Amino acid sequence: MSILVVGSVAFDSVETPFGRVEEVLGGSATYFSTSASYFAGVSLVAVVGEDFPAEHVEGLKKRGIDLEGLKKVPGKTFRWKGRYDYDLNQAHTLETNLNVFSSFDPVIPERYRELPYVFLANIDPELQLKVLEQVAKPRLVACDTMNFWIEGKPEALRKLLRRIEVFVINEAEARELAGESSLVKAARQIMKDGPRILIIKRGEYGALMFSEKSIFSAPAYPLENIFDPTGAGDSFAGGLMGYIANTGNLGEDNIRRAIIFGSVMASFNVEAFSLSRLSSLSLDEIRSRYAEFKRLTHFEDI
Amino acid sequence: MSILVVGSVAFDSVETPFGRVEEVLGGSATYFSTSASYFAGVSLVAVVGEDFPAEHVEGLKKRGIDLEGLKKVPGKTFRWKGRYDYDLNQAHTLETNLNVFSSFDPVIPERYRELPYVFLANIDPELQLKVLEQVAKPRLVACDTMNFWIEGKPEALRKLLRRIEVFVINEAEARELAGESSLVKAARQIMKDGPRILIIKRGEYGALMFSEKSIFSAPAYPLENIFDPTGAGDSFAGGLMGYIANTGNLGEDNIRRAIIFGSVMASFNVEAFSLSRLSSLSLDEIRSRYAEFKRLTHFEDI
Repeated sequence: MSILVVGSVAFDSVETPFGRVEEVLGGSATYFSTSASYFAGVSLVAVVGEDFPAEHVEGLKKRGIDLEGLKKVPGKTFRWKGRYDYDLNQAHTLETNLNVFSSFDPVIPERYRELPYVFLANIDPELQLKVLEQVAKPRLVACDTMNFWIEGKPEALRKLLRRIEVFVINEAEARELAGESSLVKAARQIMKDGPRILIIKRGEYGALMFSEKSIFSAPAYPLENIFDPTGAGDSFAGGLMGYIANTGNLGEDNIRRAIIFGSVMASFNVEAFSLSRLSSLSLDEIRSRYAEFKRLTHFEDI
Repeated sequence: MSILVVGSVAFDSVETPFGRVEEVLGGSATYFSTSASYFAGVSLVAVVGEDFPAEHVEGLKKRGIDLEGLKKVPGKTFRWKGRYDYDLNQAHTLETNLNVFSSFDPVIPERYRELPYVFLANIDPELQLKVLEQVAKPRLVACDTMNFWIEGKPEALRKLLRRIEVFVINEAEARELAGESSLVKAARQIMKDGPRILIIKRGEYGALMFSEKSIFSAPAYPLENIFDPTGAGDSFAGGLMGYIANTGNLGEDNIRRAIIFGSVMASFNVEAFSLSRLSSLSLDEIRSRYAEFKRLTHFEDI
C-alpha cells in the first residue's frame, strides 16, 4: 500500500568532522521517500525552484517515487547550511534560505487523496492541518515537528496532534512540548492530546516508543563513524512508515518491528553524505542489518 | 561464590530536583556490596572514621556483607556533597572531604585473599594495583575508574587495565581515555590494552557491552522519576558481578544477563535517596523487573 509524504526538498551544505559537501540533495521528504521506497510505494508533495536539476528528479523516479506532487515554481530551491561537531547529535544551523519553500502551500493531487498512509514531515503545523483537510480518511497519519513550531505555533500543533496516530519527535522537543523533564511523564502528557503512538528519537541512543500498553526501547546501531547525521530522523520515519504500509499491520508487535526497520534505515543513512548510501541499498543489506539489531539486543530469560 | 570489593564508604549530602538529604550513607563499596548481596556473598574492604555509627554497620551486616575488612581509624569518614539539576546524568560536586579516605591503604584480610571474584571500585589505580598484589589468582577481576585518574595517573591505569577482565566505565570517560570521539573506536582501543569485556555506562540511556565477538546494547529502565542517581554505577556493577558470582558462568550469554541484572539494580537504586530502596528489595521484585526489561526490548524476527 502507498504512502503520501508532504515535506521539503532542499539543497544542503554540510560540514562534519569527516568532510564537507556543498548543495547536495536533501530535505525531509527526500530522505523519507527514499527510505520508504524499499518497502512501499511513495507519493511525494513538495516544492522546488527552477534551479532543481533533472538528474535529481530522475534519481527519485528510479526509486519508484511518484513525483506528480513535486511542484516546480519560479525562484530558487530551499537551501540549508549546517555544521556538526564531534557531538553529532546536535546540528548547528549556519544559514537557512527558505526561498520557494517560504510560500509552500501544499496541494494534494487528486490521485493521492485516498492514499491510506500519510506522513507529514516537519513543516508549519497549519500546513500539516491543511494537508489533512485534503485527504480522505487515511488508515494511519504520522507526523514530525520541531522546536520552532512548538514555540511559534503551539495552538495549531495541539490541534494537529488530536488528528494523528503516530507522532515522531526528538527527545529535547518532547520535553519542551510537555514542559516536563521526565521523559516518561512528558510522553504520557503528549499522548493525552492525541497520538496513540509516540516515538521519541534519541539520536545515537536509539528510540523509545510509548503506546497505551507498553514502552519499547530500540537501540541505535553502533557505527564506527557517523559520517553525516543529516536526514537520520526522516530516514527513520521512512523505514517505519514503509514497513507499516508494506505489512498493513497496525498491531504493536508489528510497530516494534517497523521501529527497528526505521533504525536500520537511519543507520545506513548516516554512513555517508546526502543520499549516497540510502539510495543504493539492497534488500539483503536491509534484512541483514535487521538481524544484527536482533543480536545487538538479545538476552535470554532467566 | 563470594566477591571481594574494595572502595569507599562515605557520607553523602545530595540535592536533586526532588529533595535533599544530609550525610546519608553512601560510597562506592556500600552501593556495590548492597546490590551484589542479593546474588552472592560479599566481603568489603574500606575505611571509615570514628564518627561512623553502629547502625550503618548493622545495616550492612543484615544484608550478609562481611565487614572484617571495614577498618575504623581515628578521624572523620569521607564526605561528599553534590547536586543534580534536571539533567540527572550529570553530578555537580559541591564539596569533597576525603578525611580518613585520603590515607586509605587497603589491606586485604587473609580470609579474603582467595575470593574468586574481585571488584575494584573507583579509587587511585595505584591502590587498585596494590589490591591485586595481595590476592591469589581470582577467576574474574572487574574495575571502575574516573576522569580524575585518567588525567592524573594514566600510567598506573594502563598497567591496571592489562590485569583485569571486565572494565566498567562511563561514556565520557571512555572517550577521554581513548582520546577518540567515536565510541566504537574508543572501545576497540581500550580493549587493546587488556580488558576482555568493556562495559560503557550511559546513564538514562543504558549500557553498551563490547566483547571480542559482539556488541550488546542494554536499555535503561524508563522511570517516571529518577529521584537520586548517586550510586547508580556501583549498584549496576553490584548486580553485574553478583549475578556472575551466583552463576559462575563467564560465557557471553550469561554476561548479557548479568548486565541486565546490573541495570535492574541501578533502576531500583535511583528510585530513592541513599540506599533506602536498594537495601529493602525482594527477589521477586528483582526477577519481575528483569522480565520487564525483556518486554521493554522485545521485537520479533521478520
